[in-house]
Parts: sequence; C-alpha cells; structure tokens
Amino acid sequence: MTSSVKVLSFWRSPFGVRVLIALKEKGVEYEYIEEQDLLETKSKLLLESNPVHKKVPVLIHNGKPVCESLIILQYIDETWPSHDNNGFLPPDPYERAVVRFWADYADKKIFEAIRLILKNAEGELVEQGKKIMKESMATLDKALKDVARDGPYFGGKNINLVDITLASYLCWIETLETLGNFKSLEESTCPHLCEWAKVVVQHPSVKEGLATIPAQKVLESARELRKKYFGILE
Amino acid sequence: MTSSVKVLSFWRSPFGVRVLIALKEKGVEYEYIEEQDLLETKSKLLLESNPVHKKVPVLIHNGKPVCESLIILQYIDETWPSHDNNGFLPPDPYERAVVRFWADYADKKIFEAIRLILKNAEGELVEQGKKIMKESMATLDKALKDVARDGPYFGGKNINLVDITLASYLCWIETLETLGNFKSLEESTCPHLCEWAKVVVQHPSVKEGLATIPAQKVLESARELRKKYFGILE
Repeated sequence: MTSSVKVLSFWRSPFGVRVLIALKEKGVEYEYIEEQDLLETKSKLLLESNPVHKKVPVLIHNGKPVCESLIILQYIDETWPSHDNNGFLPPDPYERAVVRFWADYADKKIFEAIRLILKNAEGELVEQGKKIMKESMATLDKALKDVARDGPYFGGKNINLVDITLASYLCWIETLETLGNFKSLEESTCPHLCEWAKVVVQHPSVKEGLATIPAQKVLESARELRKKYFGILE
Repeated sequence: MTSSVKVLSFWRSPFGVRVLIALKEKGVEYEYIEEQDLLETKSKLLLESNPVHKKVPVLIHNGKPVCESLIILQYIDETWPSHDNNGFLPPDPYERAVVRFWADYADKKIFEAIRLILKNAEGELVEQGKKIMKESMATLDKALKDVARDGPYFGGKNINLVDITLASYLCWIETLETLGNFKSLEESTCPHLCEWAKVVVQHPSVKEGLATIPAQKVLESARELRKKYFGILE
C-alpha cells in the first residue's frame, strides 16, 4: 500500500515546521497543504481533521488525522522508527522522560514569550516575555551542557525531540529579539546553546524545514499581525 | 537491587494523585513524602529534584527525579510494563497518539477552568471557566462514546492515560461545581462520562488514590485558598 502523508499547516507556524523537519529527518515523502487564512477563516479540511482545537499543524496519515505538534512528532517517530536506534526519543525510560521534559519546557516557555511580546509593544507584559526568554534560554543552555552526549545535539550525534522543538523556534526567537529590542540567545549567557544553534541549522532536515520559514518574512508578518490585531505600530 | 520509589507531592494536587493511581495500578510500592507548605515555602528536596518548575509531583526512582505528571505516568508505564500488553498507552502508534491527545486535552482544559473559577468569585473570568468545564466535559463525553473499546474505560477493560488523568480531577470537578454553582459533569449532557465516572471511582487503584484527596476536604481547602489569596468570602 502506498502511504499517504499530508501536512496541514500555515507557513509561519513553528509547530508546523517541527512536523516538516521530523518527516524530512525520517525521509518520509509528504504533501504540504497550506491553510490560506488561518486567523480569519479556517478550511473545511482543518475543521474536519482537528475539530477540537481547530489548529494547525495536522498530520493526516492514510486519512487519519494526528494533532498537537509534540504528539505528532512522537507519532512520526513510532510509525517510522529509525533502524539505527536513533529515534527522536532514546530507548531508556529515564532518558525518554528527560527528553520529554525539555521538549515540553522549550515548547511552552517560548510560546508563552511569543504571545507576550507579540501582543504588547511595551510595559509589564512585554518585560515578562523578555524575562521568560532570557531565563529559558539560560536554562536550556545548562540542560544542553549537563546532558551526557556524544555529539553537538541534545540527542548527541542525532537530533531528538528537544532539538526539533527548539530548532523550530529559531527564527521566531530572532523576531522576538528584534520586536522587543533585547537579546536572549547570546554568546555571553548561552555559549552552549549558541554553538548548538550554529550546528543545528546546518543539519539537513532542519535546514530544509527552516528554509520554509525565512526570518525576514516572519519579522514582517509579525509586524503586520501586531498592527492589525493589537494596533502596535513601529 | 531493591528499587526505591518516592513520590513528593501535596495531598490536594490532582497531578500528584495521578502518580499515586499509576503506581498502585502497576503494583509498585512507594514512599509518599508530603510537601508541608507548598505555596509559601518549598522543601529542599523539592527544590533539588525539580529546580526548573519547583512543582509537585516529583517521582524519585532510585535517586533520579522525574517531573511533570503526564511525563511521570509515561515513565511509570515504560519502567513497569504490564505483562498483559495493557499499559497506559496501547501498542499501535495511531491509538497512542489519540490517547495522548485526550490526556493532554483533559489535563489542560480542566486545569485552566480550576484556575479561573478558584481565583474569581464572579464575572467574566469565572463564566469563562464554567464554559470551559461544560464544553470539555461534553467533548470528552463524545470522545469516550466514539473510541472503539471493549469495556467501560477510555482504555477499554483497563484504565489508560486518559482514565488516570481525568479520574484524578474528579473531586476537583465537584469542588468547582460547588464554588461556581453550576453543573458540568451531568447525566443530561454527558451520559457516557457520568457512567464512566461511576465505574472508574470503583476501580481499585483509582479508589485508593482518590481516598487520599477527599472531596469535602478539597472544597474546604479551596475556600481557604480563595479567602487567603484572592479575598473571596462565601
């Protein structure tokens, strides 16, 4: 049977980019379906395949939808297991728990910061967003330093769930730093993470995935969103 | 080697009760360590074992801490696999994704409602909390009705990740309904979920777990919290 794999997403979604990176990493061919107007109208296909959250990304495999990006990543890993035992999660239960912990941490913290900084031009909430970014980058830097590994990634020689989750945010981090006029991922406070970022963006699946979400386009799009929905002009 | 299993929690935490239910379900002996004063001072053991979130529950297995309740549940399932193939997650990747989706949904939605209803005596936010509760109970009712199963639980004959996650909230749901003077888990709108609730509270591990978090004590404690931190008197 030919396997049918479709990804329903919107280009600037970091959650969607994760799914693309994961499929590319596994060498799985897919059809990409772009949601045209995510904030105003949602497609019939999106509403049918994710009736609960009505959000992208959705992975549709042989007609069956899988939702929520970290759940999709684990689905991809379990459906197309790596032959060399280098999946997105390691085999040991404790190490799996640690990887899940950091993927969840990166996922939640950076999204929280995106929401705060995107929706507010200045004031307490945007400062809170910057604080979250600085703290979470420093915390992830320490996590990367502490984890026993035999290569440049959170996953060692291979990218894992944390690498994919964090890499998918990279151009949004740049955008946040520009909008908020601050730095979070910088050499002085996050040397290990800066080194990681340099290497991970050259990893083939990450490079191809991130090419779909160019930093300059994310920044322009973020500025349009701020103007249109929150009346923020720059 | 004798395995050392400790659970660091606070009695009224639904997240902590999940871990107790999961360990009881697997027949794993554990030492329970109660945090004495969660909101004002945190124990050295908690700060050391969960330095990132500083939250209960933490499972400490042979000295190694695992944090975040849904991650702990998966760790327990992977560390003490069920011999009869009836783990908290089914073997099939798609079914696993579906189970993860609903566990995550129940986890997030009900906690969102708890925060809104606990912190607000009346007004828009408490109404939003009630709406979330009513909608999520109806959505979970439909999910339970739709899932193919051979028994009363989300997991069929055996309890799974969704059963444990949702069951752990049961006495908090009662408390919310009393505080907000509304109904969400009721026969007319959630017949399948009401039937499920009646059966699941009699499931031995759930019954024992929930006995540690008596409904009346949760209600009294919630009223004290509202008075002390949010100035809400009833």
